[in-house]
Amino acid sequence: MARPSTPAALAIDGDRLLRRLRELGEIGADPRGGRTRLALTDADKAARELIVRWLSEAGAAVRIDRIGNIHGVLEGRSDLPPIATGSHIDTVVRAGAYDGCYGVVAGIEVLQTLSAAGELPRASVAVLVFTNEEGVRFAPDLLGSRVVAENVALEDALALHSADGCSIDEELRRIGFAGSVSPRELRPSHFVELHIEQGPMLEAEDLTIGIVEAVQGHSWWRVVIEGVANHAGTTPMALRRDAGATAMQLACALIRDAEERGVPNVATVGTITFEPGAINVVPGRATFTIDMRDDSVYSLRRAEQRLHEALLRLDRAGYTTHAQCTSRHEPVVFDDELCGLLQRVAAQRGLAARRMLSGASHDAQMMAGVCPSAMIFVPSHRGISHNPAEHTEPRQLVQGADLLLHALLELANNPETCHAPSSL
Amino acid sequence: MARPSTPAALAIDGDRLLRRLRELGEIGADPRGGRTRLALTDADKAARELIVRWLSEAGAAVRIDRIGNIHGVLEGRSDLPPIATGSHIDTVVRAGAYDGCYGVVAGIEVLQTLSAAGELPRASVAVLVFTNEEGVRFAPDLLGSRVVAENVALEDALALHSADGCSIDEELRRIGFAGSVSPRELRPSHFVELHIEQGPMLEAEDLTIGIVEAVQGHSWWRVVIEGVANHAGTTPMALRRDAGATAMQLACALIRDAEERGVPNVATVGTITFEPGAINVVPGRATFTIDMRDDSVYSLRRAEQRLHEALLRLDRAGYTTHAQCTSRHEPVVFDDELCGLLQRVAAQRGLAARRMLSGASHDAQMMAGVCPSAMIFVPSHRGISHNPAEHTEPRQLVQGADLLLHALLELANNPETCHAPSSL
Repeated sequence: MARPSTPAALAIDGDRLLRRLRELGEIGADPRGGRTRLALTDADKAARELIVRWLSEAGAAVRIDRIGNIHGVLEGRSDLPPIATGSHIDTVVRAGAYDGCYGVVAGIEVLQTLSAAGELPRASVAVLVFTNEEGVRFAPDLLGSRVVAENVALEDALALHSADGCSIDEELRRIGFAGSVSPRELRPSHFVELHIEQGPMLEAEDLTIGIVEAVQGHSWWRVVIEGVANHAGTTPMALRRDAGATAMQLACALIRDAEERGVPNVATVGTITFEPGAINVVPGRATFTIDMRDDSVYSLRRAEQRLHEALLRLDRAGYTTHAQCTSRHEPVVFDDELCGLLQRVAAQRGLAARRMLSGASHDAQMMAGVCPSAMIFVPSHRGISHNPAEHTEPRQLVQGADLLLHALLELANNPETCHAPSSL
Repeated sequence: MARPSTPAALAIDGDRLLRRLRELGEIGADPRGGRTRLALTDADKAARELIVRWLSEAGAAVRIDRIGNIHGVLEGRSDLPPIATGSHIDTVVRAGAYDGCYGVVAGIEVLQTLSAAGELPRASVAVLVFTNEEGVRFAPDLLGSRVVAENVALEDALALHSADGCSIDEELRRIGFAGSVSPRELRPSHFVELHIEQGPMLEAEDLTIGIVEAVQGHSWWRVVIEGVANHAGTTPMALRRDAGATAMQLACALIRDAEERGVPNVATVGTITFEPGAINVVPGRATFTIDMRDDSVYSLRRAEQRLHEALLRLDRAGYTTHAQCTSRHEPVVFDDELCGLLQRVAAQRGLAARRMLSGASHDAQMMAGVCPSAMIFVPSHRGISHNPAEHTEPRQLVQGADLLLHALLELANNPETCHAPSSL
């Protein structure tokens, strides 16, 4: 099919992008370093107000939906469904400046660049800013995009409470972001999320761009094993029911299992405690967490099954075990044609890119249930994220935003490039 | 050699023994259950004053030495060196009623029985009550007997400080137990300590008496392993330096090593923590403790060597490791002839006995450096100790004290039964 050429000379304002990232990063500054801007707090309110101002400056019409997602839409020349990008601006505790914020600020930069260029693309281009992506203050994570994807019902989402006793609904009203628009109002034809990698792969391979073709599934468990506490000197090994040793053996086996499943599958035991917790007492109770991630839904389920079989064996051996799932996502595969388009545009822009997986969760995995979706990653120095030391080279931040601009422009001018209308 | 018969009909007053154990057990009652009577506290002072009163009632001359050990001596008919028994009355937090206290109260019962019988034995019989055996408030443990054995110098012991900032010397003066007698004043020819087993072996084999022929050595370590904290989703297994997984593998290997060394050797990992300690962060730092016990000094040293070799391998693999020894005793072998005498007297009294090891530390292991020493164990229900649920059947408590009486009487009347004077 015929493809009108896109204005290859169009470029985002890199200085403005970096300046805005700094300015946004100052909101919710944490005295211990970094910023702490949990969802729907006063700091989040201040950041949201800044985003709304920038969207307006970029020529976008701003609407707030019922779950607090911000929709900024730059109207196109036709009534084609909009092309959307976006991410989140809530943070973890003592966060870096780029996780989520980069994709939002770069999206605004794309709108402002298109707006300033004078000739609008055929389809509208929208920036979505999702509520409570991190899930630190309110569980589950990815809340705004879950509601858009109808993974969680709006009423249930509004009724969620934080540990401090506030509901989403109350907090949205309090900070002035309880909108009236339906979360399903915007029906994008495509969604592309730009994000920092939060892992070490791109830097290790000296690449600028990752085209994310899938998000690993994850399965998080809190496992409790109860044995019998006993004197460490007088209880022979054969007469022990050592909850600590048993928990460590199981944890090591689950980690080994992930190693054997191979890249990109991972397992992490991030916390473990023993009770009563004395140097000379055999632990009577052990609690640990396991975070298992896998790119195959079958393989993830097999890993979960192995955990449960191991616990059943322990129950039969006289231990008492308990396992609670604290979070779970199945693996998500992004749209292959959209990934191909991103890869092609990256090549046109001279950016060294490869396809890859995301080990972390992102709003785009929810949007994949709404429309063809994919993600762009830029490198994270040493893979550090969720940490004030999170860093991406300014040059790479600008290159990622440039790729986003040209990919969205290509999609907005030629949405049929990627998918025949019948497949939408 | 000729052995004058001992009065086999002589018997301790079982009711008085049990009543005194209850009365002593009420001092320092902990509102959470059990009793907390840490060394040189007001509760310890009250317990010591009660012990001094009972020793006086039993006809003993009471002296306090410079490290606060109580010496209660029932004078014999000759100037032969005294036969000594004894233990401790300080406790751990939320202790049972018998650990240490049983040996002291039974010793007093022996003196009182001998005293009431009219005819005193040839050698004097002494009860020693040692300061700070548990080592909870002041490190190291076994302090009173260490000073007697010159394992720790008196001046160094007096200068030790607790976590709450008090010195042994100040606290001894404050509670009125800074005596003037030298800790070496009493030069016993034999020492026999009666104690609860604190392990499950006697009960499991339906025996009443354990003749303790050795105390296992122990080696306690606090091990720190530093790796690199990273995102649990985005860091491939091969690129991790997971301090937690590495610590658990090492801990499991040390436990397996003890299992392979076989009974009676043990290893316990009683505490472990990961930092930063989040479900979705690869641990950057892991800290665990290991308690290794072995009846062979060579085998214990080999176990320690394996720990250090493993840490060196981790250092070479890019981890940073640190290991600190927090307590260490070499294995102690008790006097074989004295164990033989205890076994013979147990058989005469119709008590089912076996020789065994102690996995826990006791003052007798220090006294073994002063004179031929040994221990008598009575069963601990389910091996529970250092716990308010510590329990020994009253019948067994009386039987153990009866054995102590007749063994001490035999020794006091015939000290040469056990060892020719030249071997003393």
